[in-house]
Amino acid sequence: MALLVLKFGGTSVADIDRIRHAARHVKREVDAGHKVAVIVSAMAGTTDQLVSWTKEVSTTPDRSEYDAIVSTGEQITAGLLALVLQGLGVGARSWVGWQIPIATNTAHGSARITSVDTTALNEFFKTGSAAIVAGFQGIADNDRVTTLGRGGSDTSAVAIAAALKARRCDIYTDVDGVYTTDPRIVSKAQKLTRISYEEMLEMASLGAKVLQTRSVELAMVHGVRLQVRSSFDDPEADQGDGITQRPGTLVCDEEEIVEQQVVSGIAYSKDEAKVTLTRVADKPGIAAAIFGPLAHSDINVDMIVQNVSDDGRFTDVTFTVPMSDLERALGVLESCKTEITYEKLSGTSDVVKISVIGIGMRSHAGVAAKMFQVLAEKGINILAITTSEIKVSILIDAAYAELAIRTLHTAYDLDEV
Amino acid sequence: MALLVLKFGGTSVADIDRIRHAARHVKREVDAGHKVAVIVSAMAGTTDQLVSWTKEVSTTPDRSEYDAIVSTGEQITAGLLALVLQGLGVGARSWVGWQIPIATNTAHGSARITSVDTTALNEFFKTGSAAIVAGFQGIADNDRVTTLGRGGSDTSAVAIAAALKARRCDIYTDVDGVYTTDPRIVSKAQKLTRISYEEMLEMASLGAKVLQTRSVELAMVHGVRLQVRSSFDDPEADQGDGITQRPGTLVCDEEEIVEQQVVSGIAYSKDEAKVTLTRVADKPGIAAAIFGPLAHSDINVDMIVQNVSDDGRFTDVTFTVPMSDLERALGVLESCKTEITYEKLSGTSDVVKISVIGIGMRSHAGVAAKMFQVLAEKGINILAITTSEIKVSILIDAAYAELAIRTLHTAYDLDEV
Repeated sequence: MALLVLKFGGTSVADIDRIRHAARHVKREVDAGHKVAVIVSAMAGTTDQLVSWTKEVSTTPDRSEYDAIVSTGEQITAGLLALVLQGLGVGARSWVGWQIPIATNTAHGSARITSVDTTALNEFFKTGSAAIVAGFQGIADNDRVTTLGRGGSDTSAVAIAAALKARRCDIYTDVDGVYTTDPRIVSKAQKLTRISYEEMLEMASLGAKVLQTRSVELAMVHGVRLQVRSSFDDPEADQGDGITQRPGTLVCDEEEIVEQQVVSGIAYSKDEAKVTLTRVADKPGIAAAIFGPLAHSDINVDMIVQNVSDDGRFTDVTFTVPMSDLERALGVLESCKTEITYEKLSGTSDVVKISVIGIGMRSHAGVAAKMFQVLAEKGINILAITTSEIKVSILIDAAYAELAIRTLHTAYDLDEV
Repeated sequence: MALLVLKFGGTSVADIDRIRHAARHVKREVDAGHKVAVIVSAMAGTTDQLVSWTKEVSTTPDRSEYDAIVSTGEQITAGLLALVLQGLGVGARSWVGWQIPIATNTAHGSARITSVDTTALNEFFKTGSAAIVAGFQGIADNDRVTTLGRGGSDTSAVAIAAALKARRCDIYTDVDGVYTTDPRIVSKAQKLTRISYEEMLEMASLGAKVLQTRSVELAMVHGVRLQVRSSFDDPEADQGDGITQRPGTLVCDEEEIVEQQVVSGIAYSKDEAKVTLTRVADKPGIAAAIFGPLAHSDINVDMIVQNVSDDGRFTDVTFTVPMSDLERALGVLESCKTEITYEKLSGTSDVVKISVIGIGMRSHAGVAAKMFQVLAEKGINILAITTSEIKVSILIDAAYAELAIRTLHTAYDLDEV
């Protein structure tokens, strides 16, 4: 008998039919004799309605009231799932953040979990019933309801799994696992059986949307084994303990991964924009003059390239910012033209960042070299590069995105055979 | 500077526009310098949706889960009203039952408030902001959310007003006060300026739907002055402290009512059904044989009439039950036919109960006599009668309901001149 945490996201509890389906997954694990905590998101339509009401009454809603309103969505799903389970003969009750309690800081809308008290849950598990927990929410010191921000229910699930020392945290979603790259772009993309936390973290932060970055970080820190799997599978085709006929992807410590590939996956992000300043005076303090005001305006700068001109007196500076911040970044730089002294300012969102990720890179030289070589053979120009211990990211023209991803997928032997 | 409690029911917060309108009533009182606690119901459509979901997943939903789900409706309204007020420049925050806390027993779906802790609210009022409280809900000893049942938000409002020792509790609703009788039936019905708790209690329990019986009881016990008024009035046409251009009805202690009428109002209820047993053996223990099994089945019996037959050996027994219990009552009596030994069992819901109410009756004889006389003059047959210190109720054929109400309204000098 193990303790399992199951998490069902928005598409997995989108309506009553989906909630019924999710309940059968829960029932299977309870019937197998496990202690089960289930973390649920809100039904998609409910959140839309709640958000639309808050927008109707306020353009910049007070975050604490916003949280009080939108957190009800998960509360409703938790209650409904508990009722469905009871109807299936499975003992169940719903829990909301303050009842457990899940303590957070007071950063409404993007609160961080500070602790999860397991006393009440552990006492409850003695009844043999399933605990259905409203995800995405917690309670601050001042007794007000907080929400955790985008993908918060993943974070709730991992935090609860860590606190309960669960054997595993199963993330039920609308895809059946983590793939070597986006299967919509590369039909030969393969589902990974296992992937390390570090790789998953890079995948998540570089554009793969399966798991939220924060939840993977938290899982890594606490050693919570995550399984990404599809809620659309037939629940009864599986055995208990999440041993599935069509296994998902296990996100775990790299030591659990026997055969480590050099490259595990290729991620991409279209949410990038490129900014270029030409003929900037190449003098000390110029980086501060450019990036200081951007930081001051809360604009994150990612890749930076600087080309020194022939005579050494001027330089071209290129960098990326989130696409949504492009207009604002251009405005900031326009207003600092006198301080920076550049000739021309230009920006485009017609770029894509492609990242090759793999823990195996640490011990294998030449991953970046191969990347440059195969892309050059296809005539793809690299606009910027950043590397870390386990990833190489490049910026290219958006028009070449699919070609580049397919080329790299083949080059690193990721194609399904 | 006073402390006022304002309560807005379902029709007064039915949608965002109505919430905006309610907010202007609140703003007026805050601007007048008062400490204000606002109790809100759920938006009508929200509750319907929540109830429909619970029905979809369960025919007999676990009451604690049902409460967890439906209580979110008031939570949403409270948050939205707080946001609207903030947009109007009025400090406001939402509160839910557990945050105050409003303690109740564990009778989910019809919980009773056991105490309201005012510490946090009183501390909060020092900020000069309005407290927007989700009505209809509380928290039980086991930290689970409870709901108070039908009209629960009225009860929440009165309980909070009592705990805060509020100057008054204003019940904003879709009618502008309490009338001598239903204006849809008697066009000359008059709005009462004041009415005593006792009379209001009889009105409420005898069919007038303006206030819920429990909230009036609670107001009477704690001496909370209630004002029933319309949320549809123009908020800015009023002065602060609820002094309105079109005053509502004040429900208060009879000592506050200077000119007491003999009869204050006429209530009616169509939710009655009549059951008749003919030729029942007139012997000791027969009442127990009839009413014991009904009580055992949780069927409330109201008016009872027994006619002894000429020879003294048999009797006819007539009584009323709630219309919704008629079929069940007939079934119970059918199954006890051998024990009771009656000849014929019949039931009809084609009856109406009409009640004449007034504290002045205590000192004025002849109220009942006048009733029987004027109804006899119109050829209206009285099927059953019950009386109390301040009311006389009769049961008549439903077809005569309007005629009887109009006749009595005129007979007791209630018509507007």
